[in-house]
Amino acid sequence: MPILENFENESSSNQLQRLNEALQGGMFVQVRMMLNELPPADVAHFLESTPPKERDILWRLINTEREGQVLQFLDDEIRNEYAAQMEPAELAAATRDLEIDDQADILGDLPDKIVKEVLASMRVQDRHRIEHALSYPEDTAGGLMNTNLVTVRPQVTIEVVMRYIRMKGDLTKTTDCIYVVDSEDRFLGSVSLCALLTSQPDQIVDDVVDHEVHPIAIDLPDADVARLFERRDLISAPVVDDQGKLVGRITIDDVVDVIMQNAGHSLMSMAGLGETDDTFAPIIASAKRRALWLGINLITVMVAVSVIGVFEETIKIVTALAILQPIVPSMGGIAGTQTLTLVIRGLSVGHISSNNFRWLMMKELGVSCINGVLWAIVVGLSVFLWFNFVQFSEYAFQLSVIIAGAMVINLIVGATAGAALPMIMRRLNIDAALSGGVVLTTVTDMVGFFSFLGLATVFFL
Amino acid sequence: MPILENFENESSSNQLQRLNEALQGGMFVQVRMMLNELPPADVAHFLESTPPKERDILWRLINTEREGQVLQFLDDEIRNEYAAQMEPAELAAATRDLEIDDQADILGDLPDKIVKEVLASMRVQDRHRIEHALSYPEDTAGGLMNTNLVTVRPQVTIEVVMRYIRMKGDLTKTTDCIYVVDSEDRFLGSVSLCALLTSQPDQIVDDVVDHEVHPIAIDLPDADVARLFERRDLISAPVVDDQGKLVGRITIDDVVDVIMQNAGHSLMSMAGLGETDDTFAPIIASAKRRALWLGINLITVMVAVSVIGVFEETIKIVTALAILQPIVPSMGGIAGTQTLTLVIRGLSVGHISSNNFRWLMMKELGVSCINGVLWAIVVGLSVFLWFNFVQFSEYAFQLSVIIAGAMVINLIVGATAGAALPMIMRRLNIDAALSGGVVLTTVTDMVGFFSFLGLATVFFL
Repeated sequence: MPILENFENESSSNQLQRLNEALQGGMFVQVRMMLNELPPADVAHFLESTPPKERDILWRLINTEREGQVLQFLDDEIRNEYAAQMEPAELAAATRDLEIDDQADILGDLPDKIVKEVLASMRVQDRHRIEHALSYPEDTAGGLMNTNLVTVRPQVTIEVVMRYIRMKGDLTKTTDCIYVVDSEDRFLGSVSLCALLTSQPDQIVDDVVDHEVHPIAIDLPDADVARLFERRDLISAPVVDDQGKLVGRITIDDVVDVIMQNAGHSLMSMAGLGETDDTFAPIIASAKRRALWLGINLITVMVAVSVIGVFEETIKIVTALAILQPIVPSMGGIAGTQTLTLVIRGLSVGHISSNNFRWLMMKELGVSCINGVLWAIVVGLSVFLWFNFVQFSEYAFQLSVIIAGAMVINLIVGATAGAALPMIMRRLNIDAALSGGVVLTTVTDMVGFFSFLGLATVFFL
Repeated sequence: MPILENFENESSSNQLQRLNEALQGGMFVQVRMMLNELPPADVAHFLESTPPKERDILWRLINTEREGQVLQFLDDEIRNEYAAQMEPAELAAATRDLEIDDQADILGDLPDKIVKEVLASMRVQDRHRIEHALSYPEDTAGGLMNTNLVTVRPQVTIEVVMRYIRMKGDLTKTTDCIYVVDSEDRFLGSVSLCALLTSQPDQIVDDVVDHEVHPIAIDLPDADVARLFERRDLISAPVVDDQGKLVGRITIDDVVDVIMQNAGHSLMSMAGLGETDDTFAPIIASAKRRALWLGINLITVMVAVSVIGVFEETIKIVTALAILQPIVPSMGGIAGTQTLTLVIRGLSVGHISSNNFRWLMMKELGVSCINGVLWAIVVGLSVFLWFNFVQFSEYAFQLSVIIAGAMVINLIVGATAGAALPMIMRRLNIDAALSGGVVLTTVTDMVGFFSFLGLATVFFL
């Protein structure tokens, strides 16, 4: 009984373990059997969780007729790798049963030459539909939508609609409503399958149509589509062209992928990683990708330490400065990163705009003033006690005053930069999640070193 | 015509602007009209995007009968604030028309006393259903599910089912299938509305039922529910208790909220912010929350700089060390954070387990060795040139060798710590997204200072 197997719950990791053991033990017959018992989405997940060499073995063990299904659920990078290895005719056959948008998704990332060959080996009608789907940019409503719609006119009766649907036979699994259009295909409203089922056969469509459904413009960016789905709890939405003509339909399952990608994007970008970075990418490929980020960091930290270089004479006199100098930049970096993250998140969920930015800036400044003064006192006292009783320096008192002053300055600068950077970068079309952190810490490092060592120079020289 | 208004697209921000202008101008009658024209989800979004004082004014301008709808879409923190301000009877009335799971969601976070009063002012039947829903932990399948289901037996005909549904009248908007159960309410399979519509009236349910639908256990954590929905592209799923009895149904719209929350969680946690931190929280509340994080950072950075204190004598002799000392900790921190982020993300999407962790560790070590050697050479050369031609120090050559050696050590330590920390913390049930970064940078700072200044002491003393 499927319930007792309780497969999709905690046993999923056990399945993975058993599969892994069979794979390590070289029992390929068993592995093949296990693989073909798992749902395609879980096979894809298992492939993604496996290092490259074993992954190639697994891919070859999947039954040919399931390859298209598995491809559909794979991460872009891995999917492209395997799709590009397949013969065009094979790829065309494997993807034939997928929905148009998923087929277009798979083909969209492949080299033009392969796509042409795959299209050539398709039936004419399929080819035209895919070519049409491929003509919309992947990251817009047009790229997300499906074009197999059921449309009816407002004046027909429910009974006729029901008969029409029954005759048509196959609605796709995700169909939750049919659309009402006028004689020129302009979108008028939608009728949910629920409404169809609960209305009387002799009513006409116009009696039960929902006019409150807002269609999505075909060129709306996918992130905005995702935001609309989230905000309004949508399951599906009609897509119209610039004349208001109904051209397709977006369903939540494809939007969830966009939401996941965008959500992962900020997190990964802030560490200089690509959003689809394959956890199990080969060493050289990973090293290359991350080297860039380390290189950028090296440049910025060299710039920051050059500030210290200016104060070499002061440090020579009071070595304690060398010990204390990382504290102020570090605290400024943390305070700035908190503001930066909050603003990046606020922008990405659409809470922050030019309307409320002034208010937000004032608030962040207020927060950093409070925390600046608080931690200036704490750090001042700690430093005084430390250099009076443990490390010993005749300058214990001066050092504590200097570091407290620098702390207040740098926390305020950190908050200002953290709030302003994402807004400025957005104007310049730069991804703040990707480069905001580096620019911010460069600022807080430089200001941190400069304010601390600068104040010290004023005091001691 | 609703299409030409094109309301949900880019005009959404214009709407916000117009609303804001009306609000600033004190034109409350217009604001009220605008607010009541917007969908409740957009009103909630607008409230979330508004500073506290103006937000209170807006809340009072919303028509009473729409308050429940708006509450449903608000972030937890703001929702609790307004729900707690309402009279119990008022709150009961406002939420009456919501789905059971959404009602339970709103009530679940309120103080027990208020919940009791609200429940007391409800009709008996409603009260029992809500009490039932509240009895499941909010962060499990039980807390996400709805209990208003349509169930049928396998032997009835489609015609009877259709008549039954028509008689019942109101299916909820998100109903996409009906469930088939045996005489003891055990889940047998589901029939999609599509299948109902396209099958012949004289067929029986058993002919069209889909047995491939796997039910979800009622105590499955919500993050796992979300992962299942994502992975399998589900729109809805049945929920069963430990005897396999059908008890409810989870729909994608509630799961999207979980996905969003979990996705935001890692990003916000890594900066020491709560996932639901209100962007427009009052200054004092924000300052308090973030002070903790700054305090923790202060302790760790003090620990790290105490390492520098050990080498005070060496720095006294070669002041150039004070200038260069931030470079190695900074690079180690970046390399470690990259690995840490990758592993946290891999764990959260379920790609990493004990099966493949060894492989991943080896890969990360490989990556850090390559980048360690590469950047050691670059930084060694840069330092040599700098201290030979610009800053001047008789130790230019030694400094470049020391910093190169320390760089290799710290990048390897960073990668090891970045990979191991999330796994160790997971064992100890600590949230790696929250505290992994602090622990990591404490490690890379200490090892960075120690390896650089330690090597220098060996060379120079």
